[in-house]
Amino acid sequence: MKLEFLQPLLKEADTKIVLLVLDGLGGLPFEDHEETPLEAASTPNLDALAARSICGLHVPVGPGITPGSGPGHLAIFGYDPTTYQVGRGVLSALGVDFDLQPGDIAARGNFCTLDDQGHVTDRRAGRISTEKNEELCGILQQIELPDAEVIVQSIKEHRFLLVLRGDNLASDLSDTDPQATGVPPHAPRPASERAWHTADLVRGFLQQAGDLLTDHHPANMVLLRGFASLPDWPTFSQAFGLRGLAIAAYPMYRGVARLLGMDVVAAPDDPQRELELLADHWQDYDFFFVHVKQTDSAGEDGDYERRIHLIEQADDLLPRLTDLNPDVLIITGDHSTPAALRAHSWHPVPVLLASPHCRPDTVQHFGERACIAGGLGPRLPGAHLMPLALAHALRLQKFGA
Amino acid sequence: MKLEFLQPLLKEADTKIVLLVLDGLGGLPFEDHEETPLEAASTPNLDALAARSICGLHVPVGPGITPGSGPGHLAIFGYDPTTYQVGRGVLSALGVDFDLQPGDIAARGNFCTLDDQGHVTDRRAGRISTEKNEELCGILQQIELPDAEVIVQSIKEHRFLLVLRGDNLASDLSDTDPQATGVPPHAPRPASERAWHTADLVRGFLQQAGDLLTDHHPANMVLLRGFASLPDWPTFSQAFGLRGLAIAAYPMYRGVARLLGMDVVAAPDDPQRELELLADHWQDYDFFFVHVKQTDSAGEDGDYERRIHLIEQADDLLPRLTDLNPDVLIITGDHSTPAALRAHSWHPVPVLLASPHCRPDTVQHFGERACIAGGLGPRLPGAHLMPLALAHALRLQKFGA
Repeated sequence: MKLEFLQPLLKEADTKIVLLVLDGLGGLPFEDHEETPLEAASTPNLDALAARSICGLHVPVGPGITPGSGPGHLAIFGYDPTTYQVGRGVLSALGVDFDLQPGDIAARGNFCTLDDQGHVTDRRAGRISTEKNEELCGILQQIELPDAEVIVQSIKEHRFLLVLRGDNLASDLSDTDPQATGVPPHAPRPASERAWHTADLVRGFLQQAGDLLTDHHPANMVLLRGFASLPDWPTFSQAFGLRGLAIAAYPMYRGVARLLGMDVVAAPDDPQRELELLADHWQDYDFFFVHVKQTDSAGEDGDYERRIHLIEQADDLLPRLTDLNPDVLIITGDHSTPAALRAHSWHPVPVLLASPHCRPDTVQHFGERACIAGGLGPRLPGAHLMPLALAHALRLQKFGA
Repeated sequence: MKLEFLQPLLKEADTKIVLLVLDGLGGLPFEDHEETPLEAASTPNLDALAARSICGLHVPVGPGITPGSGPGHLAIFGYDPTTYQVGRGVLSALGVDFDLQPGDIAARGNFCTLDDQGHVTDRRAGRISTEKNEELCGILQQIELPDAEVIVQSIKEHRFLLVLRGDNLASDLSDTDPQATGVPPHAPRPASERAWHTADLVRGFLQQAGDLLTDHHPANMVLLRGFASLPDWPTFSQAFGLRGLAIAAYPMYRGVARLLGMDVVAAPDDPQRELELLADHWQDYDFFFVHVKQTDSAGEDGDYERRIHLIEQADDLLPRLTDLNPDVLIITGDHSTPAALRAHSWHPVPVLLASPHCRPDTVQHFGERACIAGGLGPRLPGAHLMPLALAHALRLQKFGA
């Protein structure tokens, strides 16, 4: 179902929807533990909620596809990530809270090492320190181009963000990163006549960058990839008729929300403070996205026990949220992060939807195996959650007579 | 999700995937038996595997659609059969191990009966014997056409394969089979200017065929349908990055695999020998398709007890397969074949996926009803199995940052 299908059905209602994302929720049995962390954790509040919810598991992108955080969140915001694809340059900008403007061209940059023949010997320049990165970004910031502003922002280690700002820029340029060593960087090739001017600017940037970095071995050159500009998508408000607020500690998650036109609040990395911010803004919005990061970090660290502890902490805080009496409360993750894989994974993500209008199922415990039997099924497309939230919030009219 | 979506995500890994197809797996309760053959069979090995697998049922083509063997296998090979449609002429060629070349035009032929007015009285010429068919194909093989080679290969009873080989042939021709009696055969109509030449050749073939068969009543003419040439699809290796080997006793199944560019081994119709061939080739491929035919034949014969026996035989052999320690093992069928219907059916097909990275569900027994509660759900699209296999074999990168 396309986003546009919903538009004529949207109606106003005085109802509030909360989407609580426990990042990376969803795991696997680990070593000699037969239960996943969510199954092993003592979660009386989540279980009580599950018992009066409709439960299931969602597939954020598609079968077998491991979602990055960007696509994972787009899915649960209702934007099918196989349709709504965003370039790496834009994701990099979102990830450092950079306020990308319409018309800007963003690219992900790597410092790299070239040998005497100009061949790439290390695509990451030996993963230089973030301090060195900041110093070098300061140097690159001196570059001047005709008719375009150059912005170079340090990210971390060998990574930086390049933004070109000016008139008549286009993002359909090929990467300069050859994705291999022993060969020279590619020249940026324009894929359309519109992009010739931008390709000229990028060539100019690269020439000056090479000159400025020549004495900074191993970081004596840069590679660019994922040229992209802000997509022209329906905003969250246009798509769903909701005034949305994002409460998140990490820039990437605020960034995806801002990409859709939501307001954002930068929160401390503390679920309790995030819920206080939610209460503070309760009157001003219809939709609240609250992002809890810690549950994912624990998965990526491979720390099974710590993960259980953090899930139990989140469970403890749940009454603060339910006390606000949201009309619809969805609790889920943007992807699974099994401790055994120490990374995001393709496994479906547990989800519950609580509402006075939901049809409860037989699920009494919020866990991966229990949710298979839930009314949302074991493989709900992630982008179906938002239409379901709208329906349960009585914000959709009947389709057809 | 389109095949093309996976391409940029493919990555190399030293992992092996086995797809074991028990043809026609999946049935119904039969007469006074309340269980399906798979439920009634004693299958300790399949059950133990199911207990550590993710289970479910898959729908090869679409809701209510009964798959032929071609589409059924395309689905479990990851090619959505509603998108990847192949003409009957090509399927007929695959079914008799004919080595169709790019540019060849294949059609399915029937011997038929015409009356004195040239009207069709029997579209199958009274189902002549296969011996008579072979004799008549020998006669038709004398036909010569300008600029094209004619190949006529006997299939069975009234059925044969016609292949035209030459330059500038096109397959967009209409059938000559009117699908009715009491009317004359249709003339082959070209659907494009490109196909005029081929239509001329086919008219020439039909005229000579009529002359040669005139004294062979009831088989005094032929009808042609499903003109088709080899499709231009991504190969299995391009689509999934896997070197694939098909081990099958019957030409049709090897044919579908060869259509996708897999290597093929003609095996005896004996699962034990097929598993020996699997072990022999274990080092040389990443993906193995092993096709067991007998389970389907028993269903088509309506023999409930024999089917149980053949499923139990397959179960006995399972340790030979699991001893090879495939990283991903999928066991399923290409369609259901209930003994009660004595034919392929639309019912979903039981499937299990075993891998160290799968999230086990609560299913402890490999049977139709038990699999409904599995983590793959009761209606997984068949073409989703391959992306899931790749993910569990750690052969897919994360999508997006």
